[in-house]
Amino acid sequence: MAVLVTGGGGFVGLNLVEALLARGEEVILFDSGVLPPAAQRALAGYGRQLNVAPADVRDAAQVNQVFESHSIDRIAHCAAVTSGAARESRDPATIIDINIRGTLNILEAARAHGVKRVVYTSSGAVYGESLYRLSRLYEESPVMPITLYGITKFSAERLCARMRALWDIDVVCARLGTVIGAWERDTGVRDNYGTHTQLAGMALAGKTAVLTPREVRRDWIYSRDVATGLIALLEAARPPHALYNLSSGIEWANPIRRWCEVLQKAYPQFEYRVAAAGEEPNIWYTDVDRNLMDVGRIAQDVGFAPKYPMREAYADYLDWLRRTPEFFG
Amino acid sequence: MAVLVTGGGGFVGLNLVEALLARGEEVILFDSGVLPPAAQRALAGYGRQLNVAPADVRDAAQVNQVFESHSIDRIAHCAAVTSGAARESRDPATIIDINIRGTLNILEAARAHGVKRVVYTSSGAVYGESLYRLSRLYEESPVMPITLYGITKFSAERLCARMRALWDIDVVCARLGTVIGAWERDTGVRDNYGTHTQLAGMALAGKTAVLTPREVRRDWIYSRDVATGLIALLEAARPPHALYNLSSGIEWANPIRRWCEVLQKAYPQFEYRVAAAGEEPNIWYTDVDRNLMDVGRIAQDVGFAPKYPMREAYADYLDWLRRTPEFFG
Repeated sequence: MAVLVTGGGGFVGLNLVEALLARGEEVILFDSGVLPPAAQRALAGYGRQLNVAPADVRDAAQVNQVFESHSIDRIAHCAAVTSGAARESRDPATIIDINIRGTLNILEAARAHGVKRVVYTSSGAVYGESLYRLSRLYEESPVMPITLYGITKFSAERLCARMRALWDIDVVCARLGTVIGAWERDTGVRDNYGTHTQLAGMALAGKTAVLTPREVRRDWIYSRDVATGLIALLEAARPPHALYNLSSGIEWANPIRRWCEVLQKAYPQFEYRVAAAGEEPNIWYTDVDRNLMDVGRIAQDVGFAPKYPMREAYADYLDWLRRTPEFFG
Repeated sequence: MAVLVTGGGGFVGLNLVEALLARGEEVILFDSGVLPPAAQRALAGYGRQLNVAPADVRDAAQVNQVFESHSIDRIAHCAAVTSGAARESRDPATIIDINIRGTLNILEAARAHGVKRVVYTSSGAVYGESLYRLSRLYEESPVMPITLYGITKFSAERLCARMRALWDIDVVCARLGTVIGAWERDTGVRDNYGTHTQLAGMALAGKTAVLTPREVRRDWIYSRDVATGLIALLEAARPPHALYNLSSGIEWANPIRRWCEVLQKAYPQFEYRVAAAGEEPNIWYTDVDRNLMDVGRIAQDVGFAPKYPMREAYADYLDWLRRTPEFFG
């Protein structure tokens, strides 16, 4: 039996696919786009353990075809438009269709094919205004999504809960923190590159980064930890809740400066400085400060704890960069 | 310039259309279904003041055609699937398509055609679990929609807020309480008949109603008051908020028994009694008890106050029943 990963060619998806394959799982990588050459190379050694299924979650017939062709008993549903404001203004319909209707198509397939567990990757963006108003975000904290991304993620979460009740399917939602790490890229549906990824690209290109004078406060989580957390939710026999925060639970100290230092050491042509008065930064920051998502529930219920604090995350991320320079080509 | 009422042939829609016409407004009644003969008769005297536009909110081309054919400067968007659990299990896709994507189509048309104000009729169902957990519901209270109806209504509300910010369109949302009154019917997309409507139908048919032993607690609002509130929101020059509760704000005392008494007096063949031990009630109750939505904001900002307390609402509703008996044929 295989695990289906929708959006398997995306940022979270590729990290999860790698981790599942490394554990010996059979994986169906479901994605509407083409895998980048670096990912094809990284996954080439897994042979028949990996199947790539080019399909669009909006198309119920394509989704069904994937389930007809493979024996799937678990699903990690990662396919989504990670939209920025420009796309939300320009093409809100596609965001709704992929993030909400696409999720319904996956739930319908899960029901029709007797899938044992669906894990839906939601987002801290669901909390919306609460990220700034509340000092700590628990799974039961009030939500007030602002962006269409956060709105559609919340809709999809609640859709999962409703269909779980009506159809008696097993669906668990994970609200991800701000993920950094390998495989983040412009897939065509990912608008806001993380700050770390932008800096990595500049380091490899030998450019100079101009930073804002202040750091961003948030609980970053390393992409390999996200994969581990999702696998814990895919495998838990009977998780007592249907919704989990999945983040590091820790505010990293000066994460942007530290990442610049790590990059500078590895790539001496790379330079960085804080913007002078009146100067524009040349990297985009991942949103504004936000408060921490509490991770007590996922630790308690499925025993998940992140294995990569900031320093270890950066070392591993740098190692991946060195092994995968063509990814930024 | 005309007011477009989507779902104009539905329960809230017809009450609003009647009230707008009575005020001398030009009205475009937009609906995907056929008007019931009783409504056709009731509206026949308005001549050119009323235009009926058969169209489906899911079809952007049809929506656009309506805007091309008429000069519309305000929209009351009432079209929705008012779904029950059976439909939510059987056909969740249609509910999402009409309630969310349909709302987006209306917002896009509003933007393209320079509409001055859109009023979106949302629902107290958006509060979901909070209706039972919190003692009083304010517009800023936490929401936790449970049903697909409540989930899609919340999504559409937040979509309105997001596109208002991105597109600079003027959209105001009204969360309706539990509406009773004229024109409630099975439109094909309204699953849960109100308790009052069921009893009215039984009274006209000379049947015997078997009630549950206890009353339902909630803040009903009379349909003509809803229309008045929606018109206040359509007309307010600059409402300071983008979201308003629209309900009576008052818990009616023994509303089901009182309605039975009123009906029994008017229709002597109608009988009612409380179910004996082990006996099944033969009318369906509108959900369970829920707490009151606060109506301070709408009173303060646009001067709306309901004009029909329970007794007056029942007198007016009975008067309508007597004038419109064929509606229940």
